[in-house]
Amino acid sequence: MKLIYSGKTKDVYELDNGDYQLKFKDDVTGENGVFDPGANTVGLVMEGAGRAGLSLTKHFFEKLKAAGIPTHYIDANIEEATMTVMPATVFGKGLEVICRYRAVGSFLRRYGLYAQEGQSLDAFVEVTLKDDDRLDPPISKSALEMLGILSANEYDTLETLTKQISQVVKDELSDKGIELYDIKLEFGRVKKDNAVVLIDEISGGNMRAYKNGVYIEPLELEKLMLS
Amino acid sequence: MKLIYSGKTKDVYELDNGDYQLKFKDDVTGENGVFDPGANTVGLVMEGAGRAGLSLTKHFFEKLKAAGIPTHYIDANIEEATMTVMPATVFGKGLEVICRYRAVGSFLRRYGLYAQEGQSLDAFVEVTLKDDDRLDPPISKSALEMLGILSANEYDTLETLTKQISQVVKDELSDKGIELYDIKLEFGRVKKDNAVVLIDEISGGNMRAYKNGVYIEPLELEKLMLS
Repeated sequence: MKLIYSGKTKDVYELDNGDYQLKFKDDVTGENGVFDPGANTVGLVMEGAGRAGLSLTKHFFEKLKAAGIPTHYIDANIEEATMTVMPATVFGKGLEVICRYRAVGSFLRRYGLYAQEGQSLDAFVEVTLKDDDRLDPPISKSALEMLGILSANEYDTLETLTKQISQVVKDELSDKGIELYDIKLEFGRVKKDNAVVLIDEISGGNMRAYKNGVYIEPLELEKLMLS
Repeated sequence: MKLIYSGKTKDVYELDNGDYQLKFKDDVTGENGVFDPGANTVGLVMEGAGRAGLSLTKHFFEKLKAAGIPTHYIDANIEEATMTVMPATVFGKGLEVICRYRAVGSFLRRYGLYAQEGQSLDAFVEVTLKDDDRLDPPISKSALEMLGILSANEYDTLETLTKQISQVVKDELSDKGIELYDIKLEFGRVKKDNAVVLIDEISGGNMRAYKNGVYIEPLELEKLMLS
């Protein structure tokens, strides 16, 4: 088993059969001890965060599989905090794809001249580059294509999948009386045929969720969703 | 004659017949006394900058008229540093449309992980919001449409016009042995029929131009182009 990549909230290993194994850590992104799904730094360590994140990820990836939406998921071992996935490569050095139902976070910081805080957005999809040094800049379809990061067809697939996946998550949260404000997804090309699939995870750390107007922390969200 | 708007490098008046008059100032954008066309502050005052900018603007707007490309231009009085234009409204609170032939400036600051400094770009068009407080954030076609700033059709017109206008400027500079790296344009809707036209100015302060690899300051560029 070979370490391929060590990330902020998980490590990626290559298994002997060629599949990848993700090891979920108890590290959570944020700043100064406050959780922020958009942050580029590990802000706090929460006991059990890895297993809780994986449990919710397993739940959603199995829902997506049932809905015929392609992901890299094979199976998960909650006790070990590991998930086995199909090997995939990211676009360029990694992208984040955000689907927004309400104007908060970096959207509001950029477009606050035209948007009110909390205003409804109709599943608005944006892409940002994973680039800590440049604060994850937003990037358009045409710039992504021009810089050779992905093709126009791949972009369209990624946008369509993002809306489908986000709707599945939104509906699941809604069943528990929880409202999804925004969610951050990652996509890659699976090695066998270069198909665009959802990769990484879908946990509390990837989204902003509110209940009766009150923000729900990731661990609390995972508890509410899986109870 | 009524002052409608006082900008960083020019003032806009409404004439008695309803046309607008732009008064070009000697103020130049930049920081700490160094010219920067992307800067949001007036960095220096250069004697004659207003008349020189207007002279080059007149030159280009008349070239564009001859090429059948729509602008707000009516006529200019170089001595007075004034230009008479058709009244127009900006999109939202104002957009800047940039056409890039080489990767420099804010493009490189955002996408430097994927682009080399000075790398060729194929007339790449980007839009930024005029919003000093939020450092003129870049914005995609879909976000512009979603926020009601312009329609998808208007965006397409604006992108096509930007490429046509930039090519005219690039060719003119090229005739003098000067290379255009990037140029920043503004568009608006003329009041009579809401048609999308080029507004504002095309002067040294709107572009980055190089001769034999050496950057040319706006006043010097205006001198070279009109000699």
